[in-house]
Amino acid sequence: MTLDFEHVTLGQRVLFGSGKAAEHLAAEVLRLDAGRVMVIASEFESAIADRISAQISPVLRWNEVVMHVPVETAQKARNAATANNIDLLVSVGGGSTTGLAKAVALATGIPIIAIPTTYAGSEATNVWGMTDAARKTTGVDERVLPVTVIYDAALTLSLPVDLSVASGLNAMAHCIDSLWAPSADPINAALAAEGIRALSQGLPAIKIDPNGLAGRERALYGAYLSAVAFASAGSGMHHKICHVLGGTFNLPHAQTHATVLPYVLAFNAPAAPEASSRIAAAFGTVDPNEGLQKLRGVLGAPRALEDYGFTVHSIREAVEVVLPQIPATNPRRVDRESLTAVLAAATTGEDPKILIDL
Amino acid sequence: MTLDFEHVTLGQRVLFGSGKAAEHLAAEVLRLDAGRVMVIASEFESAIADRISAQISPVLRWNEVVMHVPVETAQKARNAATANNIDLLVSVGGGSTTGLAKAVALATGIPIIAIPTTYAGSEATNVWGMTDAARKTTGVDERVLPVTVIYDAALTLSLPVDLSVASGLNAMAHCIDSLWAPSADPINAALAAEGIRALSQGLPAIKIDPNGLAGRERALYGAYLSAVAFASAGSGMHHKICHVLGGTFNLPHAQTHATVLPYVLAFNAPAAPEASSRIAAAFGTVDPNEGLQKLRGVLGAPRALEDYGFTVHSIREAVEVVLPQIPATNPRRVDRESLTAVLAAATTGEDPKILIDL
Repeated sequence: MTLDFEHVTLGQRVLFGSGKAAEHLAAEVLRLDAGRVMVIASEFESAIADRISAQISPVLRWNEVVMHVPVETAQKARNAATANNIDLLVSVGGGSTTGLAKAVALATGIPIIAIPTTYAGSEATNVWGMTDAARKTTGVDERVLPVTVIYDAALTLSLPVDLSVASGLNAMAHCIDSLWAPSADPINAALAAEGIRALSQGLPAIKIDPNGLAGRERALYGAYLSAVAFASAGSGMHHKICHVLGGTFNLPHAQTHATVLPYVLAFNAPAAPEASSRIAAAFGTVDPNEGLQKLRGVLGAPRALEDYGFTVHSIREAVEVVLPQIPATNPRRVDRESLTAVLAAATTGEDPKILIDL
Repeated sequence: MTLDFEHVTLGQRVLFGSGKAAEHLAAEVLRLDAGRVMVIASEFESAIADRISAQISPVLRWNEVVMHVPVETAQKARNAATANNIDLLVSVGGGSTTGLAKAVALATGIPIIAIPTTYAGSEATNVWGMTDAARKTTGVDERVLPVTVIYDAALTLSLPVDLSVASGLNAMAHCIDSLWAPSADPINAALAAEGIRALSQGLPAIKIDPNGLAGRERALYGAYLSAVAFASAGSGMHHKICHVLGGTFNLPHAQTHATVLPYVLAFNAPAAPEASSRIAAAFGTVDPNEGLQKLRGVLGAPRALEDYGFTVHSIREAVEVVLPQIPATNPRRVDRESLTAVLAAATTGEDPKILIDL
């Protein structure tokens, strides 16, 4: 197979260590020679943020964090940053918090240190998003890429097991879908494979020992890799399907990803031998479908879209919306018939294997 | 195992495509909006450089390239770049050519596009090196990291098979040693494993079909990954040994690496189970030593240091110089006795297996 690709590696410092967030943050503030720090964290993460930033004496603590980053929220935070001559943003929280810091950085160029407390992955990308009157705008800008990410698995201990599993399987979907997404390349694939490995080890360990750090660390590390791979590779068939199911049919995000993934994998795998063998190797199984289904079994992952309100009567409409969005790069040809079969199987929770020889 | 690491990802654009160097270069010059380009290439690469840069109308073609980048050579090139208001450096060649571009960038801040024609790997690092009266100085500076690397395997077709193999095994050593080097981390390890995979596929293909592109592409891709992993992880036991053998005993670089590697691997593997299983998986074998030896066999790799003038009488002296340099992070404890055994086996070309149960 010919090697022909363009890969943009985003420069970033990653500090990984459980219980070390405060220490790592203090060292980074010193290294970056930042004098006026703004810490962004929602009320929910308030105690964590205060503890982590105790050593760095922030001049501003910002807690107005709103989901999907409304432009008004962003503007207020920008004004505050400018009025206070802020020279470093520190975000402590999930995707919305990182997103707000990015919105400030986009307008001001102030660098960001991101301290994620979930598996959202936004901290590893140069993608920003804001909403204006419920319309979402996204873009890519190098200024919004955090200069440093500080991962501390101890901060994820409060994430409930169910949410950890759902969010972890969402990260797993990033990894697997990135193997055949429009900008798939071997570097993404290597990182995605490492992400699959880490998540397949970490998630069961969280299930068994929710208060242990070992599983949380692996999952957080896997989620980071999934974000790197996905940001570079773009959305493949799986994400196109899930975006429609979420947007048009209002199905819950993480559960939709967890349910649909095995069907897209079973459908694409026969036409993507290299991706298949990478996935299988990462799971430590011979067959990629076996690896994913075994993991889903251990985790008690969601099994059918009908459990979330999607019915067979909506399949026709979903197919119409999804079909034109399927990337031309998808390894197996997707037509009305095969897409219907994939969605039908996912709706009722049939064995994904029926899609292999479709 | 606890995940505790610091990893710096260097931001860089990689364009990979056989026969596409000229096209990729023209697109990058446009993207970077560069008006005054200086092309650096030795006389040896002159024809290649002229062909690649025909579309971009460079204002300066520089061909005074000297091994190890003497400071006088660097100063002359810097003066020329400044005098000509150069805003982009394009290097076409091996390590010395990239090195000269880096020396110019270090002093001037002018960005570099690197177009490598060997497996040296310098294009993927922020390390520079210069020599002054035969003394080498090296350093790390973000200004010397090429903004873009253009890989075109067609440019490596003139690299003879023997040199390709030796240089490829040197890259293999970067990958394997990076798994236990002082700054080893799981991200380096994932990239190194991908590098081992690519090199173990590419090098035999070059041997079988020297004029084919498939093997050259894999090897070039593997060499890139080896440089990324090695630059981040630092020198491990293998490189410490080889530096002494090269510096103090004047043994040839690539051959020394190719010879010593299986002995360091056999010695360290039993104490590094995770690295071992990664290496084995990358080779597609159960045992990492088996994978490396099989590859070396296919390639007809050098087997004994004594074939390059090193004798058992020098082992004692070599041990004295090497021992204090072995990183404290080495997975297996290295003492005078064990290091002697490693060097003795490598000198006479014994089966590396004898080191496993040392």
